[in-house]
Amino acid sequence: MPDSSMYLDHFFHPESIAVVGASENSLSYGARYIQALIDFGYKGKLYAINHNGDNILGYKIFRKLSDVPDKIDLAFVSIPAGFIADIIRECIEKDIKAAVVFTAGFSETGEHGCALEKEIMGIAAGKIRLMGPNCFGPYCPGGGITFVTGSSFSCEPGSTALIAQSGQLAECIIGRALGEGVRYSKFASYGNAIDINEADLLDFLMQDDETRIITSYMEGVKDGSRFFEIARNNSGKKPVIIWKAGLTGIGAVASSSHTGSIAGTNDAWNAFFSQTSAIKVTDLDEMTDTTAAFNCIPEGCGSRAAYVSGGGAGAVIGADACEISGMQMPAFSPETEERLRELFPGTGTSLRNPVDIGNPHPSIELLEALLELMSADENVDIIVVRRVLFSVKLSRIFSGSTAPPEEQQQTLLEVPVRIKNKYKKPVAIILSEDLTDVKSLELEKERREIRDYFFSNGIPVFLSEQRAFRALSNLARFRQRAGAGNIPAITGKDKPSEGREVFIEILKNTGSKIFNEIQSKTILKKYGINVTEPMLAKSENEALSAAEKLGYPVVMKIVSPQITHKSDIGGVKTDLQGSEQVKNAYNGIMKAVKEKAAGAFIEGVSIQKMAEPGIELVIGMTRDPQFGPMLMFGLGGTLVEVLKDVSFRIVPLSGEDAKSMIKQVKSYRLLEGYRGRPGADIENLEKMLLKFSELIKENPEIKEIDINPVIAYKDGAVAVDARIIPD
Amino acid sequence: MPDSSMYLDHFFHPESIAVVGASENSLSYGARYIQALIDFGYKGKLYAINHNGDNILGYKIFRKLSDVPDKIDLAFVSIPAGFIADIIRECIEKDIKAAVVFTAGFSETGEHGCALEKEIMGIAAGKIRLMGPNCFGPYCPGGGITFVTGSSFSCEPGSTALIAQSGQLAECIIGRALGEGVRYSKFASYGNAIDINEADLLDFLMQDDETRIITSYMEGVKDGSRFFEIARNNSGKKPVIIWKAGLTGIGAVASSSHTGSIAGTNDAWNAFFSQTSAIKVTDLDEMTDTTAAFNCIPEGCGSRAAYVSGGGAGAVIGADACEISGMQMPAFSPETEERLRELFPGTGTSLRNPVDIGNPHPSIELLEALLELMSADENVDIIVVRRVLFSVKLSRIFSGSTAPPEEQQQTLLEVPVRIKNKYKKPVAIILSEDLTDVKSLELEKERREIRDYFFSNGIPVFLSEQRAFRALSNLARFRQRAGAGNIPAITGKDKPSEGREVFIEILKNTGSKIFNEIQSKTILKKYGINVTEPMLAKSENEALSAAEKLGYPVVMKIVSPQITHKSDIGGVKTDLQGSEQVKNAYNGIMKAVKEKAAGAFIEGVSIQKMAEPGIELVIGMTRDPQFGPMLMFGLGGTLVEVLKDVSFRIVPLSGEDAKSMIKQVKSYRLLEGYRGRPGADIENLEKMLLKFSELIKENPEIKEIDINPVIAYKDGAVAVDARIIPD
Repeated sequence: MPDSSMYLDHFFHPESIAVVGASENSLSYGARYIQALIDFGYKGKLYAINHNGDNILGYKIFRKLSDVPDKIDLAFVSIPAGFIADIIRECIEKDIKAAVVFTAGFSETGEHGCALEKEIMGIAAGKIRLMGPNCFGPYCPGGGITFVTGSSFSCEPGSTALIAQSGQLAECIIGRALGEGVRYSKFASYGNAIDINEADLLDFLMQDDETRIITSYMEGVKDGSRFFEIARNNSGKKPVIIWKAGLTGIGAVASSSHTGSIAGTNDAWNAFFSQTSAIKVTDLDEMTDTTAAFNCIPEGCGSRAAYVSGGGAGAVIGADACEISGMQMPAFSPETEERLRELFPGTGTSLRNPVDIGNPHPSIELLEALLELMSADENVDIIVVRRVLFSVKLSRIFSGSTAPPEEQQQTLLEVPVRIKNKYKKPVAIILSEDLTDVKSLELEKERREIRDYFFSNGIPVFLSEQRAFRALSNLARFRQRAGAGNIPAITGKDKPSEGREVFIEILKNTGSKIFNEIQSKTILKKYGINVTEPMLAKSENEALSAAEKLGYPVVMKIVSPQITHKSDIGGVKTDLQGSEQVKNAYNGIMKAVKEKAAGAFIEGVSIQKMAEPGIELVIGMTRDPQFGPMLMFGLGGTLVEVLKDVSFRIVPLSGEDAKSMIKQVKSYRLLEGYRGRPGADIENLEKMLLKFSELIKENPEIKEIDINPVIAYKDGAVAVDARIIPD
Repeated sequence: MPDSSMYLDHFFHPESIAVVGASENSLSYGARYIQALIDFGYKGKLYAINHNGDNILGYKIFRKLSDVPDKIDLAFVSIPAGFIADIIRECIEKDIKAAVVFTAGFSETGEHGCALEKEIMGIAAGKIRLMGPNCFGPYCPGGGITFVTGSSFSCEPGSTALIAQSGQLAECIIGRALGEGVRYSKFASYGNAIDINEADLLDFLMQDDETRIITSYMEGVKDGSRFFEIARNNSGKKPVIIWKAGLTGIGAVASSSHTGSIAGTNDAWNAFFSQTSAIKVTDLDEMTDTTAAFNCIPEGCGSRAAYVSGGGAGAVIGADACEISGMQMPAFSPETEERLRELFPGTGTSLRNPVDIGNPHPSIELLEALLELMSADENVDIIVVRRVLFSVKLSRIFSGSTAPPEEQQQTLLEVPVRIKNKYKKPVAIILSEDLTDVKSLELEKERREIRDYFFSNGIPVFLSEQRAFRALSNLARFRQRAGAGNIPAITGKDKPSEGREVFIEILKNTGSKIFNEIQSKTILKKYGINVTEPMLAKSENEALSAAEKLGYPVVMKIVSPQITHKSDIGGVKTDLQGSEQVKNAYNGIMKAVKEKAAGAFIEGVSIQKMAEPGIELVIGMTRDPQFGPMLMFGLGGTLVEVLKDVSFRIVPLSGEDAKSMIKQVKSYRLLEGYRGRPGADIENLEKMLLKFSELIKENPEIKEIDINPVIAYKDGAVAVDARIIPD
């Protein structure tokens, strides 16, 4: 496999482009692409390729790529699907390292399309990088590159990159971002992603000097494991903002394990966001707001907001939005509180955080003093200003003669900027659209100008309290995750362990059938997971001597490759207190099995010491179709099954992952020891999860595992039953 | 108590207004109010009242109200707080029936203010209706009334009313609504609500012919029980949209019951919305979107949306937004599907719902045919159109030469209107702000014009998929709740029952202490709730003969007014299988009680038959500070305590409430009989809840109740332990 970032820069900074399929018809996509590049101001060389025609937009049309006398960095291919394979061959002959396949009609249309894609990849692999098919390709103002419909896009380069399969949505995102002071370094619409996929692009952009913020819209991910690894190894270097769409996109996968039947479509994505510093956004508003906020405050910010509102309801609404977002409004220091009281001696104000200054147009001096006080308070990470009317015109409409004079407009705007620069503490402003009728368009013009002024001075502006706190909480989360350095990078694998050898041995013997309890526990034990050790007994006498050796009470279970649901047929006997009961149990099991599972091959019965009562847990693994092995942790028992109180993490787990996945279950308080009951040894459970993760990582042949139950005690925990399902 | 709506119309349609505190100083609020009324075009008579000055804005200043020669409908009072009481007296002498007290500085500032409010209400009660203090008062374009800062508000009357304590927020709401085609009938900012509160206004507006939609912003509610009753009796006549703000507003109330300690601040509000057809919105966007949608589609709509997007990502985003909102995207009928395939024979489209037509500018014929097909499909309740570019200008920017010609603009807009009118099926349009920079203001102007065109033709327009579906799902919920007529109105009380008499008797005897198990069960039984009947035994012998009578196994518990946590001190013995065990238990309990609760008065022990194992439930009641008695239902046991898997409803319950509160708990599947286990007799539980509601309603002296546990069986259920805590 070639280095994923190989040749990727050719797509964004090509010195020469060949447009394959640029006919004399100016409505052909090829011709439109050339026109778009000209309009956009592309400075490199352009070559038109088509099987007929003389010239297009002043460019001579070449018949074949090999006719072009110069070196070509990038081919843009817009010809019918059936001809693409030949063209890719020609590209390789011409030593072109990058091609955008614009054409649609591949895997998205059915089997024939899939076959075409395979053929093309077979030709391209290792020789040329492909973007597409069925895509818009790259946009890169720094390289003078835009896409077919993008001639009107901003030519101004920025430091935000966008990854999105959909070119049309990119139009929306990039258009909207214009008004929020965001400009782009690179965008790639990569369509069906037969070669270049989101993992390649993420990897490339992570190392790209032009890019400071990475944003992405994705409905699914092709190489989830690699994407996860790259996102995690990022460790907060650059904010990665992901709008994951398609809640109903991927159907559940048929599953024979408990874990598999509980895991839902979004569990893996939720785990992804828990395990990386990537930021999850859920719609276009949150995407643009969050991007715009990072653009102003690239390092993120803390979660303690000082909030000022020119009115009481605004304070309540802000507090609600803050609470919902997970941010905090801390109490001010006593000094700040005292000085606030000096500043606002009158009634009609509330000077605790959130601050209500009573009316929306404070004097400039008062606003400055207020923001200064809040910025100086060390309990405060960010200042959020709401319904202070920065538009004097609007003030006049709402408050008539009590509004400030027109000539103060600019001075008013400078206040938050000055304070922000003085204290190096972020300030955010909520600037709502108050009058949205056609007649009030002049006000909208002014609103946009004020907004632009703030954005250009590093102050993010939001349309509402909810949107402000939603975006700012994303900044806070990034800072916390990245700043704390608590996402350990995934490192390479060690050499195979003893456990691996045992696993391979058992796999050979069972021939891909479900591993029985004894086999499964043998493997668990090799990875350091504590189990109730079963002994195999093939006769009543063997059972008796095993029981004496283990000490009472004991549990007996049938061992047979044909019998997986042991209890259902009477193949399990628990709490056996003495030799008499062991004898009866042995014979009872044998009788039951003969009746209900006639013909099953009986290896014997497993006997083990009965575990002391404790807290019943389940640990399991299932495979997510995108991200691969995914570990589940939860409380056991029927009620928890109904409530699905479980957490998931993508394998491999970090120590932090293990800790947080235990804490995430709602019944965590039981593990802590609820109302004086004995709790669980949580540190031991964390270790067990890490060992389990190691086991899964080292044995990719495992499709699913259930350890059900694990019983947890004040000191330690033990796996009481287990089964492993190989692929 | 006077009729709540008494004189309320004086506030909105006064023929004469006296402004008390209108000085010659044009910056005084009184003077500003007169100016605002003049500017707004008030047609009635205006009188200025002040202790000095000659005239203001051409109006003679009277010294006293009694000096005014005419009848006065409404007094607007803006003088210092200390003088208000006297002025209210003068109002009453002058036979004024309505006064707005604009002045602040009352209960919101502390005790002295509270006392002033009480004094004023003492004077006013039954004689004059007061709005305020600390409020902006009414706005009513139909009556020519606006508030101090509202001279620029729309003079055009509409059919939406707004209830909100905050006048400033009302400015925002009314201003924003301008752009969404919404005009107001009435608004009242009622401040501290010493007389007129949200319940009065809701009642009044419900009967108001000028008002079709009622909207409200509230942080709390003064008379929650009445507000609940009015909202519920509405039964879907008019949409009532409530933005409930202040998540952290009301502190938890100290509580000695299990139920009380679980109930949170928002449980009562959530119950309120479950039990009425009122619509909950959570921010200004949702408020304006929902109002605007109802304004176009007053009867609400069904929840099955046909969705069309000019692009694939838009289809996915729409499907996500739809799913989150609780709406559905149904499959089309086979005929629709077939005709769609004829309409769009090419590739690059997806013709199942959500429909992706591949590009954002279909021909007019194609768009018309598509909308027609979807409207005709009987599986479809509403059509939602997304990213079909209704602006030809915008089309041109994104798609250049492939965009439709400029002269088609108007014809394009008429398509959805024509289809909507033809099929009488609602159509909604998502019209996003694509370019938000200052330079693109011309596009914004056009967007607003297009938006206004659709709104004025009864088609609601939204800025995003999320906002569209959020609002439309509110319409669907209203339609479902109101249309199904499944909210039974609360009717008057019957005459006291036998249970009430027993309750009063026990209350007298206990002297407001906690009722013991035997007393509590006696009351439960009187209300028809099945209990395990306890017998009181005062000696070992009495215990023995009771046990023989009941039949084994039995349970024994200490009965003492001083001992509430019986198990904790060894005062409970279960599963007693014979006379020997009963004797031992009796003596054991007595010994334990003497040791651990020395000095407690021992009434004896209760003996009852031990209940068969079943599903453990909890039923309880606590008092919400706003809405009063609130019933709780949930599964019992420690795990459920940790998970707080419970539901709440405000008392009294309807049959529908009982049904839905049982269904609401996450562990409902256990009650249905999970994985072949015996379930519960759900109908019986519903009846038990209704009887319990009746008990609570009839005995207002009860502060809290716990029935813990109730054990539910396949047939019936039984209350095993209970206690009642009187106020």
